Amino acid sequence: MELTLPIDRTAVVVIECQNDLVHESKIGAPGIGGALAAAVQARNVLGHIAGVVDAARAVGVPILYANKESRPGLATGHAAIFRIGKRNPILVENTWGAEVHSAIAPQDGDYVLRRFLSVDASHASGLFDTLRALGRSHLIAMGVSTNFAVEGTVRGAVNRLFEVIVPEDCCASVPEDMHRFSVERILPLLATVTTSAPVIAALHSESV
Amino acid sequence: MELTLPIDRTAVVVIECQNDLVHESKIGAPGIGGALAAAVQARNVLGHIAGVVDAARAVGVPILYANKESRPGLATGHAAIFRIGKRNPILVENTWGAEVHSAIAPQDGDYVLRRFLSVDASHASGLFDTLRALGRSHLIAMGVSTNFAVEGTVRGAVNRLFEVIVPEDCCASVPEDMHRFSVERILPLLATVTTSAPVIAALHSESV
Amino acid sequence: MELTLPIDRTAVVVIECQNDLVHESKIGAPGIGGALAAAVQARNVLGHIAGVVDAARAVGVPILYANKESRPGLATGHAAIFRIGKRNPILVENTWGAEVHSAIAPQDGDYVLRRFLSVDASHASGLFDTLRALGRSHLIAMGVSTNFAVEGTVRGAVNRLFEVIVPEDCCASVPEDMHRFSVERILPLLATVTTSAPVIAALHSESV
Amino acid sequence: MELTLPIDRTAVVVIECQNDLVHESKIGAPGIGGALAAAVQARNVLGHIAGVVDAARAVGVPILYANKESRPGLATGHAAIFRIGKRNPILVENTWGAEVHSAIAPQDGDYVLRRFLSVDASHASGLFDTLRALGRSHLIAMGVSTNFAVEGTVRGAVNRLFEVIVPEDCCASVPEDMHRFSVERILPLLATVTTSAPVIAALHSESV
Repeated sequence: MELTLPIDRTAVVVIECQNDLVHESKIGAPGIGGALAAAVQARNVLGHIAGVVDAARAVGVPILYANKESRPGLATGHAAIFRIGKRNPILVENTWGAEVHSAIAPQDGDYVLRRFLSVDASHASGLFDTLRALGRSHLIAMGVSTNFAVEGTVRGAVNRLFEVIVPEDCCASVPEDMHRFSVERILPLLATVTTSAPVIAALHSESV
Repeated sequence: MELTLPIDRTAVVVIECQNDLVHESKIGAPGIGGALAAAVQARNVLGHIAGVVDAARAVGVPILYANKESRPGLATGHAAIFRIGKRNPILVENTWGAEVHSAIAPQDGDYVLRRFLSVDASHASGLFDTLRALGRSHLIAMGVSTNFAVEGTVRGAVNRLFEVIVPEDCCASVPEDMHRFSVERILPLLATVTTSAPVIAALHSESV
Repeated sequence: MELTLPIDRTAVVVIECQNDLVHESKIGAPGIGGALAAAVQARNVLGHIAGVVDAARAVGVPILYANKESRPGLATGHAAIFRIGKRNPILVENTWGAEVHSAIAPQDGDYVLRRFLSVDASHASGLFDTLRALGRSHLIAMGVSTNFAVEGTVRGAVNRLFEVIVPEDCCASVPEDMHRFSVERILPLLATVTTSAPVIAALHSESV
Repeated sequence: MELTLPIDRTAVVVIECQNDLVHESKIGAPGIGGALAAAVQARNVLGHIAGVVDAARAVGVPILYANKESRPGLATGHAAIFRIGKRNPILVENTWGAEVHSAIAPQDGDYVLRRFLSVDASHASGLFDTLRALGRSHLIAMGVSTNFAVEGTVRGAVNRLFEVIVPEDCCASVPEDMHRFSVERILPLLATVTTSAPVIAALHSESV
């Protein structure tokens, strides 16, 4: 089935594709970053995202980056998911590790939304307000990790009546079955789950 | 490991335990309600919730009910999860189907939060504002379905730095492996996953 | 200048027109209710609101009621504005005082949004989510008090890029110069300030 | 009456004290910036803010800056308050005009919250989430303009049960009677309105 997108009402959000989580030099490092970076490379996630982002830019679809940064001393709650960062701080503000991977780096005119808090990349980041100001009802969501920051953003978007498209080859979680559960069992009830090729085709179709 | 709870900062939320979703008379009915009601009965979810709610009331822990209601003509988005309700409306406001099951019905002094929109029971329902006004930092989350309204509420609570406890025998999803994935793989990273017995014991310990 | 409204994207919100604040039997009572009820009668606020609400219903424009209710024991903060209610509880849930005045009572199909908290009638009440689900970008805001619940709702709406229309003869504050400051100095920078007659005319124009 | 502050639960927010709005070189320029900068100088607003900020830093009270930035092409709504910026763009991102005035510039460890949208400096800026993560219940609000970004932030904070302190000599609006109305008629119902001297004294009292 062909995917169609209302180009003038669509935006792209790239979620937490920051060096500490996705850079190839992190592969093998202890902690979530090492495993996630390996999955990102194995699935060519950055290549797929680059394809979508380039196609989106070519037709004027806005690109938003939803980044998470950390600052020593700022509470993040006691949930287990936050403990990793406490033992071994990652995504520290103003460091290379908190920057978006250079293969898909923000360009002039893109929106870079930073937050220090929350699992969900859309919480208190201004994401939905920015989408509305840009007149966007459709959101292409990509990045890591599939089950937390990405799925959380999808859930948040659906709660607010946005239409969401998830190209699943632009996402990764570890272990792999976590990713599969999200894209096979949860996200199909909330979003259009597809891959980058049909999304790129739908974006290109507008530019003809 | 024994569970401890700060009683004067704890609240209970009962999520979407409304007749159309959980009542035994719905078992076998077509749609999500029939399957979910069967799972609720098979797991004795209402019995477990009743145990927690009674123990909470006995020590003055506030009880909140997060209900979803529908109204013909009010848009809910195009996500697949909403389509069920369009074919065969359930949870229609001011009907028996939208009422909380009588086995765990709200009593005077409880909070009944209604919403028409969103998958997540905490979205635009006033839940977090009410918890803060009640001075509550810890939330015992129970109800249906585990993967959507319950997990969404847990995610929303963790984004806002609440501590969450999920007694998993007070929750259900269908099919069963959906429930298990949430309570075994996702929720342990966000919350304390336990069962009703330790929660009831922790609540009782205060009243001695 | 003639007012035009996009009928299929317009909604009406009636703010806190509850008996304890606006009913004629309260005139002369001690506290904010007595003074406000007198101003409401003197300005014929309920008559003007009824005109707008009737015209809106006639053309299918949704009507929302944003009510505030109180419950003994639920914290509301220490701001002076909340102290009145502590000395002499008003708007107590499930009482006549918390009901909308019968002259402009909700009818089947209207939305009645209740909240226990906040000065601003749009905070944690689901108002903006409901407006979006109804596909509404324009909001006609009316009720009491002009400077607090009404102006707060206008500010909240403008923050979210809604267009707001305030028929100022459908609002009241005490003393009168409070009302005037809001409608002459603040609201013109945020909304279209007008009176009920042009609003009714704009609504009628659609039904021809 | 002496002011007391719970130092370990207090934060300071400096609102929109950006060059285009408050810098002395803007005095006499056409538009809101010129008039506001003149009022800021006449009232020594920056000097008073510097006093509060220095006292706060000395005792470890967090400092947050709530800035507004603009980007050509991003919709801000049709309210009159936004039209000024359309005719003559100010606060353009990545320009000197959007930076905080050097007399009260952010230092390492401060929080700089940026937003592109909304009149209210607390909307979609992460302000309240950051305050909660920092464990802060009391907010000292200062900046420009008194009636819009500052008062809007106070209203937003009170809706969320924060306690607010407004040192009114740290704020300005034009014309002057706008400022006076807010600090004499509106803010006293929502916050503790005082001046910088008692706030500085309350902050110093902790460091003895």
